[in-house]
Amino acid sequence: MIKVLGYAAKHSYSRLKRIQFEREEARANEIEIEVLFCGVCHSDIHQVKNEWSNTVYPCVPGHEIVGRVTNVGPGGTRHEVGDLVGVGCMIESCRHCDPCQSGDQNYCEGPNAWLATYNGPMVPAAKALNGGNMYGRDNTFGGYSDVMVVNEDFALKIPTNLKPEVAAPILCAGATTYSPLKHWGVKAGDNVGVIGFGGLGDMACKIAKAMGAQVTVFTTTSQKLEEAKRLGISGVLESDKDAMKEMKSSFDFMLSTIPEKHDINPFIELLKRDRTLCIVGALEPMAGVDNSAVAFHRKRVAGSLIGNLADTQEVLDFCAKHGIGPDIEIIDIQDVNDAFKKVEKGDVRFRYVIDMASLKRDESA
Amino acid sequence: MIKVLGYAAKHSYSRLKRIQFEREEARANEIEIEVLFCGVCHSDIHQVKNEWSNTVYPCVPGHEIVGRVTNVGPGGTRHEVGDLVGVGCMIESCRHCDPCQSGDQNYCEGPNAWLATYNGPMVPAAKALNGGNMYGRDNTFGGYSDVMVVNEDFALKIPTNLKPEVAAPILCAGATTYSPLKHWGVKAGDNVGVIGFGGLGDMACKIAKAMGAQVTVFTTTSQKLEEAKRLGISGVLESDKDAMKEMKSSFDFMLSTIPEKHDINPFIELLKRDRTLCIVGALEPMAGVDNSAVAFHRKRVAGSLIGNLADTQEVLDFCAKHGIGPDIEIIDIQDVNDAFKKVEKGDVRFRYVIDMASLKRDESA
Repeated sequence: MIKVLGYAAKHSYSRLKRIQFEREEARANEIEIEVLFCGVCHSDIHQVKNEWSNTVYPCVPGHEIVGRVTNVGPGGTRHEVGDLVGVGCMIESCRHCDPCQSGDQNYCEGPNAWLATYNGPMVPAAKALNGGNMYGRDNTFGGYSDVMVVNEDFALKIPTNLKPEVAAPILCAGATTYSPLKHWGVKAGDNVGVIGFGGLGDMACKIAKAMGAQVTVFTTTSQKLEEAKRLGISGVLESDKDAMKEMKSSFDFMLSTIPEKHDINPFIELLKRDRTLCIVGALEPMAGVDNSAVAFHRKRVAGSLIGNLADTQEVLDFCAKHGIGPDIEIIDIQDVNDAFKKVEKGDVRFRYVIDMASLKRDESA
Repeated sequence: MIKVLGYAAKHSYSRLKRIQFEREEARANEIEIEVLFCGVCHSDIHQVKNEWSNTVYPCVPGHEIVGRVTNVGPGGTRHEVGDLVGVGCMIESCRHCDPCQSGDQNYCEGPNAWLATYNGPMVPAAKALNGGNMYGRDNTFGGYSDVMVVNEDFALKIPTNLKPEVAAPILCAGATTYSPLKHWGVKAGDNVGVIGFGGLGDMACKIAKAMGAQVTVFTTTSQKLEEAKRLGISGVLESDKDAMKEMKSSFDFMLSTIPEKHDINPFIELLKRDRTLCIVGALEPMAGVDNSAVAFHRKRVAGSLIGNLADTQEVLDFCAKHGIGPDIEIIDIQDVNDAFKKVEKGDVRFRYVIDMASLKRDESA
């Protein structure tokens, strides 16, 4: 067994604190990774606070992980000791269902769906149709820790010209926005709207621009509008009714990145006929949609969940090729509780990334 | 001017009563039609009662019209005197916008959108972007009358082997359900769910079956379940949780035909990955959708509005070819107010069709 240091929440109202736990050593086709950086995703906060009513404690969050391979289990061929690799939201899937066979591990229909990097199977054994626990565990511990052990197929290659700390948020925020932009065929010249300008919104805007689209970001604060301008992205205040009216029926695709329940009705008006608004930020009951606005131009409201492994590798390579990446602020793990509060208030520009070296300096445990 | 007899509501809480009004005689490319039959659509009731907050009074409803051509205006070539023709929800569109040029008159983006068979332009002049009134009128009078005058392009040909009274509801209920079934590519062997079993649901089931799909209808009453069985259609009670659970992730397409706000969340669970639930029944704010159910398998919720002219002709021909049509009950115009009440209670099997000859027997005015 490997002794691991991490930061965990013990229950839904606790701060993250240092813990020690053990991971099994790398088995066949698994690799051991020394974690260098881990992004702070809004999902980490939802999960720690049990806002999806499915959290297993203790909860060690973190699914935007970049690290260096320190050991390769028997039979492993994909990565070598010393390689820089990334781990995103998934560390395993059933590999047999139709989505898995098509490469869409993120839509795995196995009895436990995919195995999340933290908080265990997406469908717990008790809720699975056949009651089985195909992964043999109900909880998993994520990247707010110094060591990860994962199957080599679920570790992505970090391109040499991407800084590891910049690559980290691409594993979730990048894949989550790249996947629907690609799936709905966004192309050069398209008019793309991005709703919300946080960690996902920042990546969505940059990726869509690199795809050649005209991008407009919609936000609620003039401060974020200024930030967008600084990054060369056109923005509009949602409260600017005149601007909203002028953009009616003009967008080829819209992506909502707001991480909580919100009203998408004002944005449905902005879509062209037969086009899609996709929600990736919120995993919860949304405000009701007016079907007359949807039906009158045969529009669609869709959802999309993270990205599959191929998309995740693609977005890493895409960002490296186009010289784009998230705007980040590097923090120590000791500051993660404050960081959570700032993320909730939208006060981060745009992603906190934990320098995991700070964990070794922590003597509180 | 032509003297016309019709049935109209004078305000939102009035019963329909006989009125006399005038229509202009057929101008260039217009035809005059003696109305034989007109279906009673749930939209007629919504409109009469001002449930969409846009009703112009007096309101003469009716957009499932079958009649005989009695006069052809100058230059008309499409129909001849004596032809049996149908008029659906639209009687004109801008003809210049991208949707009109693509044959999708029902998604017309002209300043007033399409001209509805009753209640005038879909976008009234006061609300149009340029404030214009391209049709020169704010109200139109529908098929609860003995004479219609419409542009020949908006009159469909009734196939010789369709009874006129059976053809009438196909002009709206048939087109509204055929159009999305076709648009989303329903094909032989697909598993199609139809939510709600009224006038639209009846047509949706029959059309999807004739396309070769496996069809399941979802209803809330065992009485409707029996009716479905009688028509050879498999049905499930929405309240049957076990049956619903067994059908999880099994449908290629679902069509909701319920004519009012309702909860589609239980049905989203039944869709396969990457598939669409389309709402055609309700034109109003819907119950909120849980985006986790949508996002977890990249599903889509769409809307669709009636059908374009080509779809409407196609569905008439399709029904004639496959020997299908709505189950109807023929009524006199004098019974229309009672019929409205029964439609609202779901007590019709499945479409009332008014025999317009009854109008001539009416001596109350």
